[in-house]
Amino acid sequence: MSRVAVLGAGSWGTSLAIVLAENGHDTLLWTHRKEQAEEISNQHRNAKYLPETILPENLNATDDMEKAISHAEIVVMAVPTKGIRETCKKMLKTLDKKVLFIHVSKGIEPNTLLRISDIIKEEIPAEFIEEIVVLSGPSHAEEVVLHHPTTVAAACEDIVAAERVQDLFMNQYFRVYTNKDVIGVEIGGALKNVIALAAGAVDGLGFGDNAKAALITRGLAEISRLGVKMGANPLTFSGLAGMGDLIVTCTSVHSRNWRAGHMLGKGYTLDEILEQMGMVVEGVRTTKAAHQLAEKYDVSMPIAEALYSVLFEDKNPRQTVEELMLRVKKQELDAYYL
Amino acid sequence: MSRVAVLGAGSWGTSLAIVLAENGHDTLLWTHRKEQAEEISNQHRNAKYLPETILPENLNATDDMEKAISHAEIVVMAVPTKGIRETCKKMLKTLDKKVLFIHVSKGIEPNTLLRISDIIKEEIPAEFIEEIVVLSGPSHAEEVVLHHPTTVAAACEDIVAAERVQDLFMNQYFRVYTNKDVIGVEIGGALKNVIALAAGAVDGLGFGDNAKAALITRGLAEISRLGVKMGANPLTFSGLAGMGDLIVTCTSVHSRNWRAGHMLGKGYTLDEILEQMGMVVEGVRTTKAAHQLAEKYDVSMPIAEALYSVLFEDKNPRQTVEELMLRVKKQELDAYYL
Repeated sequence: MSRVAVLGAGSWGTSLAIVLAENGHDTLLWTHRKEQAEEISNQHRNAKYLPETILPENLNATDDMEKAISHAEIVVMAVPTKGIRETCKKMLKTLDKKVLFIHVSKGIEPNTLLRISDIIKEEIPAEFIEEIVVLSGPSHAEEVVLHHPTTVAAACEDIVAAERVQDLFMNQYFRVYTNKDVIGVEIGGALKNVIALAAGAVDGLGFGDNAKAALITRGLAEISRLGVKMGANPLTFSGLAGMGDLIVTCTSVHSRNWRAGHMLGKGYTLDEILEQMGMVVEGVRTTKAAHQLAEKYDVSMPIAEALYSVLFEDKNPRQTVEELMLRVKKQELDAYYL
Repeated sequence: MSRVAVLGAGSWGTSLAIVLAENGHDTLLWTHRKEQAEEISNQHRNAKYLPETILPENLNATDDMEKAISHAEIVVMAVPTKGIRETCKKMLKTLDKKVLFIHVSKGIEPNTLLRISDIIKEEIPAEFIEEIVVLSGPSHAEEVVLHHPTTVAAACEDIVAAERVQDLFMNQYFRVYTNKDVIGVEIGGALKNVIALAAGAVDGLGFGDNAKAALITRGLAEISRLGVKMGANPLTFSGLAGMGDLIVTCTSVHSRNWRAGHMLGKGYTLDEILEQMGMVVEGVRTTKAAHQLAEKYDVSMPIAEALYSVLFEDKNPRQTVEELMLRVKKQELDAYYL
């Protein structure tokens, strides 16, 4: 049994806290909203994010960061990408020992182009970090709480730390594979949102399953090319945090990024889409980051660049797809590295 | 302009003949049924397989194999796997020169465990074979005839032959990538039907998108393991004929293999399914072949083996999935080669 603090009580943080509590770990969920913490501890509900779910009796929550951190030997960071730095700063105030970090966020910081584990390393001094493990894979929270079979990858250069995380989460409905390739797992998780936007656009244009399968396949190829240049193992992209997560995100109509892309394909402008959705669409930020990363690492990313030109340079989506189809003839395997 | 004979006027053979005719090639479609040949040549329809489509004026059909073969410098074989040998034998009677073979069939011959190009080489003497190119990828015929964007791979050890096929088919809606890896492209196309059956079963059991994405991902990993042992390039399985075709087949409710799997998940026996579908389900034959191949090449294929035990050894589907989830803990990347 381990003592774990989960920071962030959105749908994914709460679901992971449920898995940990069900596995018998002493789990404390932190949220900055006092009412939410009380609702979770007293009513065993998180009405905003998992309205249908009754939480385990042994899962408690707090809005007191000091209490959460002093409780924990393991910290799961489950906050949105843009909240990572702030949460680290808040945490650092009370941190007085080494802890094992697990993060489950999917994104790239705009402009700095840092991955999540890099951001954590910038904010938390090494003396407080045992290891940082990233947990990622095809995992709708709504299905995990129903105990539907789910598999994810836990990645850390130190395989012993990855195995600790595997042991922590693994049970009959939640299967964890270890992986040493942190860069690949983080890049796969972040960049999939770009391809999900493009997949939505292809569906919105009415182009069908052949085009969408090709887009997902060639999209993963360009994510792999970028990842390999950044130091990732190419095989990671054929795994759960690459292909697996990409498939779930591109084929589910519940994905926010897919929905935004679908509106793009139907002819709405980016401003109209963001206004109508009324919330952040991570893939839009990541498309900007992909555009910058492609330039920085000198990698060809035709799908991300095409999406960038549609989103930010007013190019016509249909014409853009036709141009992609008529590019210079290619050898398939060369194209992974060109 | 090339002179091409397409053997087989099912939905895929007819669609490819349309692409060729639209690209300006002198294309003759062969079918063993005289009425169908007349319908295609005179009414420009193929009512049985593509009821909604009007065929190009310059596409003609014949039931005379000699006429088809004497016409052609390139032969596209578009017959089901079990018809390959018979069609080769019929063709051989009139063949008096070297031709370029293109085949588009997806399967493994039961018991001999031969790939399609191996079967062609067994039936047709080398003096009549210029090269054999396999064309494969995510390509519903119904979408190709609507000019929806479609991409496929053309594979041949001789890249010049693959490029000839690329030039032959490529146009604004049909994009062809070349690949040297015939083994990989053939294995990917054949084995996807096993995973599509299993994906249907997972859907039939009501297990959700996480489980299905994991199944597709781990399914491709075991296809890759087998393919690599047989001599394939592992990267082919991340391409159009691997991942691309697998995604289309596993996520489309129109796939016959998915439908059969779905019934399996709902509790029907194999006999009941085959009786109700009233036609061959290629994935059932291929599951047997996969079981034999796994043994022959000493490769771990847990998903194919689990499906085999459900289909042929009356194992319970739900229990089988739970056993797959609880197998020994694994490292993700090691698992590609173990």
